[in-house]
Amino acid sequence: MNSVETLKNIRVVLTQTSHPGNIGAAARAMKTMGLSALALVNPRQFPHPDADARAAGALDVLRQAQVHASLAAALNGCVLAVATSSRRRELRHEMMAVRDAAHALLAQAASHPVAIVFGNESSGLSSEEAGLCQVWSYIPANPEYASLNLAAAVQIFAYELHVALPHAAGQHEPEFEPASLDQVGQLRQRFEQTMEHTGFLDPANPKRLPSRLRRLLARARLEVEEVNFLHGFLKSVDKLRR
Amino acid sequence: MNSVETLKNIRVVLTQTSHPGNIGAAARAMKTMGLSALALVNPRQFPHPDADARAAGALDVLRQAQVHASLAAALNGCVLAVATSSRRRELRHEMMAVRDAAHALLAQAASHPVAIVFGNESSGLSSEEAGLCQVWSYIPANPEYASLNLAAAVQIFAYELHVALPHAAGQHEPEFEPASLDQVGQLRQRFEQTMEHTGFLDPANPKRLPSRLRRLLARARLEVEEVNFLHGFLKSVDKLRR
Repeated sequence: MNSVETLKNIRVVLTQTSHPGNIGAAARAMKTMGLSALALVNPRQFPHPDADARAAGALDVLRQAQVHASLAAALNGCVLAVATSSRRRELRHEMMAVRDAAHALLAQAASHPVAIVFGNESSGLSSEEAGLCQVWSYIPANPEYASLNLAAAVQIFAYELHVALPHAAGQHEPEFEPASLDQVGQLRQRFEQTMEHTGFLDPANPKRLPSRLRRLLARARLEVEEVNFLHGFLKSVDKLRR
Repeated sequence: MNSVETLKNIRVVLTQTSHPGNIGAAARAMKTMGLSALALVNPRQFPHPDADARAAGALDVLRQAQVHASLAAALNGCVLAVATSSRRRELRHEMMAVRDAAHALLAQAASHPVAIVFGNESSGLSSEEAGLCQVWSYIPANPEYASLNLAAAVQIFAYELHVALPHAAGQHEPEFEPASLDQVGQLRQRFEQTMEHTGFLDPANPKRLPSRLRRLLARARLEVEEVNFLHGFLKSVDKLRR
């Protein structure tokens, strides 16, 4: 697949955006780097003249933006979702600098839709939203003032994707079919049920087991066949008696 | 010289800026990456409330900005001036991508002041201004729409400088202890034993299960705590009866 098609597979998702001007500026930032798929989750005001004004020559990106009622809907069909954070440390998630995240996204985007998710300007992503993403990424920044404007953050991610593209485009397509977010989510639930069955997980006092499991499965980048394999194993466990 | 001192030696020069909001947004972009030296050449309006508003938490950078009547004055004391352009080809100048320009600037900035020069939002740098710079640099972008907002261009240059600094260059403190190959190998054996116990794996006819498990565990890049966690789960399975 060529570079243009790869970039089309990369969805920029803005959730709960407060200022419509930021949506327009993000669209402009995307287009300067060849990105075009914009998804908006519950924007406070959209469409809006401020969005159009800041989009400048990227009105086409804005006009084609998809508006969704939930992040889950905006991620439909994606095999990888990368959350963005201004914090470097998120205990429950694998953290990647933006440059590494760009390579991870491109590796999948050659053949499947992927997403980068940006939260609200002030509050970022909710923990529910974060839970739908497998990787958290950050932009290396001044520890004393890491407050990038939303569109500036989109610009840097888009830029890193653009400059990483020539290298990634030459890679061969993955031999194996990556599991979808839904498939990994269902596997995780099944794992927890089985862990309850064996007595390893106490639902009244789960401690850190669920978050540990979530993080482990997110990092593993499971393939469809591996998900099926693990379901098979868990099924064999469920047949045992306490 | 340490990183902080090096960044202080890098002057961001905005010439003939039309919109004061862009000056404020540029100040914010600089501060997020640890830059603080802002020089303005004949800004159309400055100071201005729009500049303050877009600067957000970087008002200090704005307040310390030096205003000059000419680019020559703004470059006083600098040993290297890098012009920025949205065009990739400038016949009369050496052209560098922003990443290379960042390294060239840092090499000098450890001991001397240097500058990056951004022209007017619409017309860029005049040829007289361009003649005062030794290197022209560009941000790799979409050839069909390379029109980055001024502050977005400043953001990318500042970001590249930040990540090119020795302390930031791809380094990350490992938050978690990675499991050793031995630990992962022992976990894999235990997994196979448990799979035999549940009847999922038939040792007389293992099919592709062992190789699948090996591949999955290798890709997951497990941490020590996760290995222990999975051992705990497998132990709980082993206590069940067929």
